[in-house]
Amino acid sequence: MSTDVVVLTPAELDLWSDQRLLSVEEALSLWINPDAPAGLGQAMRYAVLDGGKRLRPMLVLAAREAVANGVKDDVLDAAALRAACAVELIHAYSLVHDDMPCMDNDVLRRGKPTVHVQFGEAQALLAGDALQALAFELLTPENQSPSSSGVLANIPDGVQARLCRLLAKAAGFNGMAGGQAIDLASVGLALDEHQLREMHHLKTGALLEASVMMGAACGHTTDHAWECLRRFGRAIGLAFQVVDDILDVTADSVTLGKTAGKDAANDKPTYVSLMGLHRAQEYAEQLLAEALKALRDSGLASAYTLAALAQRVVNRKT
Amino acid sequence: MSTDVVVLTPAELDLWSDQRLLSVEEALSLWINPDAPAGLGQAMRYAVLDGGKRLRPMLVLAAREAVANGVKDDVLDAAALRAACAVELIHAYSLVHDDMPCMDNDVLRRGKPTVHVQFGEAQALLAGDALQALAFELLTPENQSPSSSGVLANIPDGVQARLCRLLAKAAGFNGMAGGQAIDLASVGLALDEHQLREMHHLKTGALLEASVMMGAACGHTTDHAWECLRRFGRAIGLAFQVVDDILDVTADSVTLGKTAGKDAANDKPTYVSLMGLHRAQEYAEQLLAEALKALRDSGLASAYTLAALAQRVVNRKT
Repeated sequence: MSTDVVVLTPAELDLWSDQRLLSVEEALSLWINPDAPAGLGQAMRYAVLDGGKRLRPMLVLAAREAVANGVKDDVLDAAALRAACAVELIHAYSLVHDDMPCMDNDVLRRGKPTVHVQFGEAQALLAGDALQALAFELLTPENQSPSSSGVLANIPDGVQARLCRLLAKAAGFNGMAGGQAIDLASVGLALDEHQLREMHHLKTGALLEASVMMGAACGHTTDHAWECLRRFGRAIGLAFQVVDDILDVTADSVTLGKTAGKDAANDKPTYVSLMGLHRAQEYAEQLLAEALKALRDSGLASAYTLAALAQRVVNRKT
Repeated sequence: MSTDVVVLTPAELDLWSDQRLLSVEEALSLWINPDAPAGLGQAMRYAVLDGGKRLRPMLVLAAREAVANGVKDDVLDAAALRAACAVELIHAYSLVHDDMPCMDNDVLRRGKPTVHVQFGEAQALLAGDALQALAFELLTPENQSPSSSGVLANIPDGVQARLCRLLAKAAGFNGMAGGQAIDLASVGLALDEHQLREMHHLKTGALLEASVMMGAACGHTTDHAWECLRRFGRAIGLAFQVVDDILDVTADSVTLGKTAGKDAANDKPTYVSLMGLHRAQEYAEQLLAEALKALRDSGLASAYTLAALAQRVVNRKT
């Protein structure tokens, strides 16, 4: 794809991701206490650890690096790591609840039995609830008193509050939960492209967009760059879903690690059912171009990792 | 009950509560958007509005007034109202999820069909999820830019972050959700008094304690007063559950507005099953005395409403 934004090569992105993934996995494992009461910690860990591509955390960290522009700041880096994990916890809880019998009733996720199959429905419900609470707990660490240790990493109150604000909005009725309610109500209905876009903007897009914005909130941006990053986040949020719909018909369950062909089987409206496979693929490319243009418009010189992540979202095979 | 803490009379408390309840109901109705997608807003409103004694919001507001000590501050009052509503949203979501078939499978709550009976299980699940997110959204309002309006009520970032921190901890695996996991695992088991106290401290106590602390966070306290308020909150949190267990065997379903005798029917351990009715009643009185002593120790001159709320928690009939 031709663009005048600097983009990491796939090999460079792999190297970058591998390093960041280590930090994220380690932090998630540290923060989800295995000793949480009555098996709850085990269910929460099962839902989150050792799985997923961690796209949302990677977007948080790449956006943080884009706005940091090479200036090191341990406190803001720590805030970004917490934000990365918090977004992933929200994503993971939504999958746990979404898989439950009263929702999608799915038994396979990331190649493993779903949480309610493994731990029972009640524990799955509670694990999801507790993961959502933990996300906000991660974003609001108590500041250390200056006397307690030599090295301080007190995340400014303003950053904590802003991260909570972005995540709460993206998770709630004006975001993910609202999108799932539309999804639930739309089974068997013929949505038009506008309605389908609105549903996916809320259901999947809001949290992806929030990931980018939360990374940007761990740093200093101009209002202009902030708005460009929002355009970027919105475009890749939508692109992600279009590609998801494409993969649902073109990939198999083993590759996906979840049940393929599920949307058609459940009579759910998708971009493929609406516009056909070819036009859906063109639409994904168009959204990628919009995303890259937004990055170029931002004027951020260090946005090359975000750009590479956007390409990967559209070109992914799983 | 003899005490040297000044306490509002029941009539004074009624007057105080009636005024505060109006503000809380109005705010909840304003903040739970009826137009949230696909009926989700209606399910959320059904779960929250026109019901409940609003004990937690009242604790938030009374604690705020105790630390304010008569000094008016519109911004901190606004923060306390948001905190009061946020705590109630967390409480309401926990009831919605707790009533679901995979948990307690209850059909009656506050004299009305439970949310999953009225709206279906999937919508109940989503409504609970969205209520939790909304709680954190309420705590983190975007600050107005100085130019946008004459009257500003920008809640300081430090207050926002602290409120989120208190609520997230109280709702999560180290609080309410953890307590529910223990509750779930303990059906049919013989818990001793220590284990029962631990379960209830997490399941019910943590959020009641957090209500008091969130009110206190909307103001300026000494570390000493803060710790005394925590002791107060812990004592009434426990007292609330002891009285709940007493009422489960002494009151009828119509008075309670929920199914009475449920704990015994479900073979759940309670303070009454553990220590007998008479000793449970004595224990509730002892906890009330501890709560009032904590208030006296705090040195807060305006804690009379908190004191009256504590008495009401123990002397309530529903």
